[in-house]
Amino acid sequence: MTASGRAGEPSAWPPLRGELRGIEPYGAPQLDVPVQLNVNENPYGPSDACIADIAAAAAEAAATLNRYPDREFVALRADLASYLSGDAGAGVTIAPEQVWAANGSNEVMLQLLQAFGGPGRTAVSFAPTYSMYPEYARDTNTRWVAGRRAEDFALDLDAARDLVKTEQPSVILLPSPNNPTGTALPPEAVRTLCEAAGDEGIVVVDEAYGEFRRTGVPSALELLPSYRNLVVTRTMSKAFAGAGLRLGYLAADPAICDAIRVVRLPYHLSAVTQAVARAALRHAPELLGKVDELRGERDALVGWLRAEGYDVADSDANFVLFGRFADRHAVWQGLLDQGVLIRETGPDGWLRVSVGTATEMAAFRTALNEVTAVNGERA
Amino acid sequence: MTASGRAGEPSAWPPLRGELRGIEPYGAPQLDVPVQLNVNENPYGPSDACIADIAAAAAEAAATLNRYPDREFVALRADLASYLSGDAGAGVTIAPEQVWAANGSNEVMLQLLQAFGGPGRTAVSFAPTYSMYPEYARDTNTRWVAGRRAEDFALDLDAARDLVKTEQPSVILLPSPNNPTGTALPPEAVRTLCEAAGDEGIVVVDEAYGEFRRTGVPSALELLPSYRNLVVTRTMSKAFAGAGLRLGYLAADPAICDAIRVVRLPYHLSAVTQAVARAALRHAPELLGKVDELRGERDALVGWLRAEGYDVADSDANFVLFGRFADRHAVWQGLLDQGVLIRETGPDGWLRVSVGTATEMAAFRTALNEVTAVNGERA
Repeated sequence: MTASGRAGEPSAWPPLRGELRGIEPYGAPQLDVPVQLNVNENPYGPSDACIADIAAAAAEAAATLNRYPDREFVALRADLASYLSGDAGAGVTIAPEQVWAANGSNEVMLQLLQAFGGPGRTAVSFAPTYSMYPEYARDTNTRWVAGRRAEDFALDLDAARDLVKTEQPSVILLPSPNNPTGTALPPEAVRTLCEAAGDEGIVVVDEAYGEFRRTGVPSALELLPSYRNLVVTRTMSKAFAGAGLRLGYLAADPAICDAIRVVRLPYHLSAVTQAVARAALRHAPELLGKVDELRGERDALVGWLRAEGYDVADSDANFVLFGRFADRHAVWQGLLDQGVLIRETGPDGWLRVSVGTATEMAAFRTALNEVTAVNGERA
Repeated sequence: MTASGRAGEPSAWPPLRGELRGIEPYGAPQLDVPVQLNVNENPYGPSDACIADIAAAAAEAAATLNRYPDREFVALRADLASYLSGDAGAGVTIAPEQVWAANGSNEVMLQLLQAFGGPGRTAVSFAPTYSMYPEYARDTNTRWVAGRRAEDFALDLDAARDLVKTEQPSVILLPSPNNPTGTALPPEAVRTLCEAAGDEGIVVVDEAYGEFRRTGVPSALELLPSYRNLVVTRTMSKAFAGAGLRLGYLAADPAICDAIRVVRLPYHLSAVTQAVARAALRHAPELLGKVDELRGERDALVGWLRAEGYDVADSDANFVLFGRFADRHAVWQGLLDQGVLIRETGPDGWLRVSVGTATEMAAFRTALNEVTAVNGERA
């Protein structure tokens, strides 16, 4: 054992992997302010009836809490399949064996990269995009390659296809709508990249915000019957108002779900998580009922920001990317000083704001006008 | 892209990593039989008062389920630290910043190997031992080296130290008591391997079954003040009767907890999991109250098996390894045919039985006598 530690790494304690040293853990600031518009939560909590149903489900699970949960979460998979079939578009049915779930869609992504990525393999996405993707790649020792999106944050399909042909990724990560830009993918883009990936890669369309898409924008679920290498991920954190539940899931070919079972930790979904998720799914109409209202707020926000002269990315999500600011941090801080927390993320000069209640959006508009009037911060 | 797939791998679909192909997912059979003694669960479920408290905690968490949970689970860490301080032995206090938790101790292990193992690094343990360890290594691309235990399943300390010096592992996994043998480690073994590992390795003492240790057997928690490279893991699945809760945790130097924060998935512990775990911890005296009874059943079982002429490993856990059988599978199947499910695991010729209620153990004894009388299966 040399004094300098593992080969090629300078000595340091604790003996963390070299590439992890000095890295700050991922996460937006968790601050207790009146208007929280920073992590794209649904502003509406569950109804009293839903809370009561969740408590009853937890009590039922607790009665046998000394036993391990159903490792295959058969009942939850069936419920998720039923929900997805309703959102997939006419004629598409999702079967339970096409569904997989984990503690948040970030665990789903990690499992996908453990199974299909890893050393000697490459994952591709297109920036600006979700800042956790390179962390999933890093944590699974998967090579990470980020192409660039066009100026309007859409995919340049020819360039994207060329990159896939060159890099031969085993995993392609395509959020739709994209975070932090809000940009949805047209079906043609998914088709093109599924064909480019071929049998040697999987295409993961991350629809964490899928339920917020504008009328006429289809889900990639529609394409599942056409491409066995297509994976569509969802979460209960956003439209389902269940960020505190940590339940992410996917729909794909059953062989892909079976492959994940090799790398999943046994009993990864607790009995309580399974029971509470099923209770929340029984209240889907109520929980999703606020989605239309939030879509309306979103479209109104985009309209207002454009009328004020901002650059605003088209959004199919429950957040809006707007700019540009010479000093975006000053604007972010000015808003925070007024009790409005948004997110300093995305390309330089832009800021992202989540869509909250009408009252919260009014507070945001007022605060933004005050901050920019004082600072003259517009670029 | 070649027709044969990724370099060095034969073509197959889906494009799972080569080393994962054809592997069966980990897990004991989940069968619905009257006497379940196969996965070392605590046979006693929570009391009505504990169930009610869990339901109330879940309801409280559900009221703000639209918000992300506390990423740092500060309150839960404090509660776990308080519990551990009570079990650590005189004069040892565990602070909240020394505690980390995840969805089962298997997620804790995965995070430890993501942070401290990985490509180019080695993890060491001593077989026969917990069959998930090589899977954690495989899933984090960590080289896996297994030394051998002595005939009585104790560690041969000289050989173990030599292996550590030769292999220079960055992670040493030491279950105490060991699964599936039930063997506890003496403090001297932990000291020796912490010193052998030095600043370039961490020593993980897996005390999943720690609360079942016999009187006079200390916990490695006592050694935390002496070794900054020592990690002691625990779980709420066993003594705490919370297998369905999926809450594993560790105590270690705060710098080790901070290092894990770099690789943990953000918000990995749901609001419901945090709340339910805290509720269960409030009922610790009740949940742990059955531990003494189970230790008594365990000691009686060891005595009975030895009186019947079996080889039986000393056990500090809530299970017993016994043998030897010319055809252990036939004995396992014979027991199952009588409604008693135990585990076919460990060295060839041995079987492992969990310690259940007095009634369940009586059923096990009766069934074993009948099976061996018919089969003459003893080796």
